[in-house]
Amino acid sequence: MKSAAAKCDWFFPDTFLPDISDGISHEALCVLNVEDQDAHLTLKLYFEDAEPMEGFEAVCPAQRTNHIRFDKFFSRDGKAIPQCKGYAVWLHSDVPVLCQYTRVDATKPDRALMTTMGLSV
Amino acid sequence: MKSAAAKCDWFFPDTFLPDISDGISHEALCVLNVEDQDAHLTLKLYFEDAEPMEGFEAVCPAQRTNHIRFDKFFSRDGKAIPQCKGYAVWLHSDVPVLCQYTRVDATKPDRALMTTMGLSV
Amino acid sequence: MKSAAAKCDWFFPDTFLPDISDGISHEALCVLNVEDQDAHLTLKLYFEDAEPMEGFEAVCPAQRTNHIRFDKFFSRDGKAIPQCKGYAVWLHSDVPVLCQYTRVDATKPDRALMTTMGLSV
Amino acid sequence: MKSAAAKCDWFFPDTFLPDISDGISHEALCVLNVEDQDAHLTLKLYFEDAEPMEGFEAVCPAQRTNHIRFDKFFSRDGKAIPQCKGYAVWLHSDVPVLCQYTRVDATKPDRALMTTMGLSV
Repeated sequence: MKSAAAKCDWFFPDTFLPDISDGISHEALCVLNVEDQDAHLTLKLYFEDAEPMEGFEAVCPAQRTNHIRFDKFFSRDGKAIPQCKGYAVWLHSDVPVLCQYTRVDATKPDRALMTTMGLSV
Repeated sequence: MKSAAAKCDWFFPDTFLPDISDGISHEALCVLNVEDQDAHLTLKLYFEDAEPMEGFEAVCPAQRTNHIRFDKFFSRDGKAIPQCKGYAVWLHSDVPVLCQYTRVDATKPDRALMTTMGLSV
Repeated sequence: MKSAAAKCDWFFPDTFLPDISDGISHEALCVLNVEDQDAHLTLKLYFEDAEPMEGFEAVCPAQRTNHIRFDKFFSRDGKAIPQCKGYAVWLHSDVPVLCQYTRVDATKPDRALMTTMGLSV
Repeated sequence: MKSAAAKCDWFFPDTFLPDISDGISHEALCVLNVEDQDAHLTLKLYFEDAEPMEGFEAVCPAQRTNHIRFDKFFSRDGKAIPQCKGYAVWLHSDVPVLCQYTRVDATKPDRALMTTMGLSV
């Protein structure tokens, strides 16, 4: 492993996809893979009032970044991420990666940004 | 325990509830519980010029997230969180959880966002 | 010590005090002291093109928070923090504390916010 | 070493240089060197659809901070950082340093800010 900072599990307790109809507002879960093997990612979504959703998958190739835009991200069976609803994410990777979350909210209409690294150990 | 990143104690030195009269501005302390047991949360609020406030409680059910909105959060004896006053929070949970804090300030009137994971060990 | 998350040394590589003439823009270094002893804080400021500045001191009393506003913070010999100039901060405390940094920029004129926990070990 | 929080490797999965033609929008990777030796920094940039870029170098002198503005940062052979394209950064230093990333987006036209400490171990 090239860095001990890379991990297989990352947690994001505050995810929220704004109304994306303006074409700018979005969330992105940004993954960096500095290893020489592709990383296969699976995301589990947790809600306040419903069972977790599974089936969201992505790949972050070796020596690449993948900025996963949640406004354009669908589960294996075609489900979109719900808009305007608080949820949370557990990302699991088969290869250690590094993860940061960013939200862009342009609904007011000026742009607001927030970012944080994920939680891991 | 499903992840060593989940912890029982989380600290947030900079909390501040803006004037919430616009119906948009708020703070949220977002909790993720990936365990199979409900988590019982107690929050202690620290101030610059007064004794800490206690009696703020919430539940984050098993396999759920709880985005605790501080503009709608009251202590057991009905006290609200003071607006426009800097304070700090210690969240304790009986089950290990993951915690992130977000502030939405729409008082200017455009929206400003900030977020950070809590401090823990 | 009440929490192992509390530490005596905190680092903030990106500090920048905007033009504060609007009365809203500011930086705050927010300290939480959950111990039963007062914490005496000393801050060392690092610059890109000059020797570090010392002599900035504050107290965070036992069981209190101190949101140190850098627009109203002066060294022992009356020096203010320079505006519109990138710098960095090392905060040292004699009692373990928890630290978060927040910047409010209202110079555009709408409000922008950013926050992060400090770096420590 | 003066602090165990200082590290030689820092990771930033979500970097994105906005359109910088307004003269305000930018990214900065802010480095703090509290040691008594100069730190020589090398940055490796990772993309979604291309090989990593190398050759980006900077110095953070002893007891100084360096707020590296990516809108004014060029590789040894004169390459600029691409605008409006998601990427990621691995910063390596020969002396342990502390690193924070900040983005300023003024393209809307009001200012949006986001910041986070880098990932390290």
